[in-house]
Amino acid sequence: MINHRGPEFASLIAALTRALQDVLKTQGDVLLLTASGSGGMEAAVANTLARNDKVLLFVNGAFGERFHSICRAYGVDARRVDVPWGRAVEPDLVRDELAKEKGKDGAKAVLLQHGETSTGVLNPLKEIAEVVRDAGKLLIVDSVSAAGAVELEVDQWGIDVLVTASQKAWGAPPGVAIVTMSPRAWKAYDRSDLPKAYFDLQQAKASLEKAQTPTTPAVSVFIALQESLKLMAEEGIDAIVRRHRDLAYATRRGVQAVGLPLFADEAHASPCVTSFRPPTRVDSRNLIRILRESYDTIVAGGQGRLEGQIVRVGHMGFVTVPDVVSFFSALEFTLRDLHQAVEPGQGIAAFLRAYDEATQPPPKIGRTAPKTATLARR
Amino acid sequence: MINHRGPEFASLIAALTRALQDVLKTQGDVLLLTASGSGGMEAAVANTLARNDKVLLFVNGAFGERFHSICRAYGVDARRVDVPWGRAVEPDLVRDELAKEKGKDGAKAVLLQHGETSTGVLNPLKEIAEVVRDAGKLLIVDSVSAAGAVELEVDQWGIDVLVTASQKAWGAPPGVAIVTMSPRAWKAYDRSDLPKAYFDLQQAKASLEKAQTPTTPAVSVFIALQESLKLMAEEGIDAIVRRHRDLAYATRRGVQAVGLPLFADEAHASPCVTSFRPPTRVDSRNLIRILRESYDTIVAGGQGRLEGQIVRVGHMGFVTVPDVVSFFSALEFTLRDLHQAVEPGQGIAAFLRAYDEATQPPPKIGRTAPKTATLARR
Repeated sequence: MINHRGPEFASLIAALTRALQDVLKTQGDVLLLTASGSGGMEAAVANTLARNDKVLLFVNGAFGERFHSICRAYGVDARRVDVPWGRAVEPDLVRDELAKEKGKDGAKAVLLQHGETSTGVLNPLKEIAEVVRDAGKLLIVDSVSAAGAVELEVDQWGIDVLVTASQKAWGAPPGVAIVTMSPRAWKAYDRSDLPKAYFDLQQAKASLEKAQTPTTPAVSVFIALQESLKLMAEEGIDAIVRRHRDLAYATRRGVQAVGLPLFADEAHASPCVTSFRPPTRVDSRNLIRILRESYDTIVAGGQGRLEGQIVRVGHMGFVTVPDVVSFFSALEFTLRDLHQAVEPGQGIAAFLRAYDEATQPPPKIGRTAPKTATLARR
Repeated sequence: MINHRGPEFASLIAALTRALQDVLKTQGDVLLLTASGSGGMEAAVANTLARNDKVLLFVNGAFGERFHSICRAYGVDARRVDVPWGRAVEPDLVRDELAKEKGKDGAKAVLLQHGETSTGVLNPLKEIAEVVRDAGKLLIVDSVSAAGAVELEVDQWGIDVLVTASQKAWGAPPGVAIVTMSPRAWKAYDRSDLPKAYFDLQQAKASLEKAQTPTTPAVSVFIALQESLKLMAEEGIDAIVRRHRDLAYATRRGVQAVGLPLFADEAHASPCVTSFRPPTRVDSRNLIRILRESYDTIVAGGQGRLEGQIVRVGHMGFVTVPDVVSFFSALEFTLRDLHQAVEPGQGIAAFLRAYDEATQPPPKIGRTAPKTATLARR
């Protein structure tokens, strides 16, 4: 450990904050909390809202439900708009619902997920943010499993509070939540009357000005996160976004090639996690158990109402082609164990072909691009 | 990392909880939160108190002030009894103050520190707990920097909520808070109306029954904590308590031998941290800086109103005689750099002599004990 009140930690937190500002594209405050992403979500609510405030909450998965629980716990009046799990929150829906929230009595803020990890959906945040900005509402976003892997411009898009966490695309161990605050979010802080002590972001900001944290931080996770950010800076955020996009695209092709239906709407599929259904009459928990016990491969199942119904494979952070190849190899064996008609290499080949197509350089001007490549790239 | 929803983590959290119950001597619930100790303190308040509840809060250092801030943030009406920093909260004081809190309008709970890290005082918790139990009040204790290093029997002494944290006597990295809940504390939970989501201990208990945590835990810190508990089980808690007591006693003798005055009342000196004053006209920050920059030795300074006025040397967790010898060697050099009259080895010799005296086996019955050993042992 290093002393969290000493000069080494001071350099660490200063560098970490700057690196996060770079990746998140914000000049605003980036505050680090020793907590999981859910703690960051709670901080977002407790620091910007007041008791009985109305907010508009879009729910399209288990983490939307979590935002709802947090609002309820704090006495925030969340009007909940539910979207079928596996589908995205569409900007038009946000516009229509915001039209009902005009005037002084309307919702103060819009809350939603960026990546809804529980279903593998990436909500189109850029377009949604534009709609919310036009309506003049505060925008609070859970980007726990999206930020660091997808296109994101906190300031440019006008996101007031964005929450992410060390263990997802950032590739460090869990234990640190990351919360951005816009100047408008700080104005909301001033009128917020919800109880906050450990999650008080004003205290976090005051400590950060002394290159410290208000309470003892998870030092080892901070150090790991800094290593991650160094690796990320080497690769570059644009390349990271492309890698995630292409790996996800190819993963979906591999899943389909072994005969399994994708769960999330492909138009809004997450670049971080791919969800799919198990073979007919197979409980996904059984498939996941075989993957783990026989092939040392860890994937996740459905959460909440999707328990037993879907499989989720994560491909975020420092994930490479060989990692996903290993996964498909294990999946092929598992499907064979479950008496499914799968040829060895069937998923792997489709994955590799799709990845190859997706990553080919764009055609030069004046030449006709081969049709397959054009179709493959999205 | 391991999957925090998988069987490996399930074994880990189950074993960790049992091991903590053993050391803390409780059959009650032991809940693990991904947070620093201050998060655990907040959980203790938010889960057992209600808005406008009166509580009696004893403050004899910076962490007492922190309890006060938390109560204030949640609208808990804390009557604060201040004790001079460096002195202990005496059971008689607690009895006298509790006498003013009789009846329906009296305080619901008593809050205090066990070890007040900021001053190096160990409050006599066993005796205080007896007084509080007689008065029928809920007892909420911050034992962040005491539990795991000192005599402590959560159930026997009647402690309702005890908070500690992974990084202190437990010797693991920071990031996990540990909170015990007695059956009486759970009754208080039922009438508590303070907002809680991330720190909701009922949710932590429900998840623990499935060998999980409600949100993503700081997995790497959990793993480290389990390793610590294995080492602690090998040494045995009684031996650990003796080691801390003897090292602390010997450290105080060493400090006095180099001419520096102890800060905390020796009758209640902490076995985890020793506080002392720098030489006259020396700012403690200067002494601490020389220790760090010239002798690679990290100690802490005063907090809050004690900034610049005291030095605190930690000797908790997996600390051994050679560690403290290194510290004294660095301290002697630093004092020389500050033009103090200190002979090389002066502190080291006094420390080693005192440690040797303290750890000699007790005299056999029928023989007269050598006077020095009798005096040395406490």
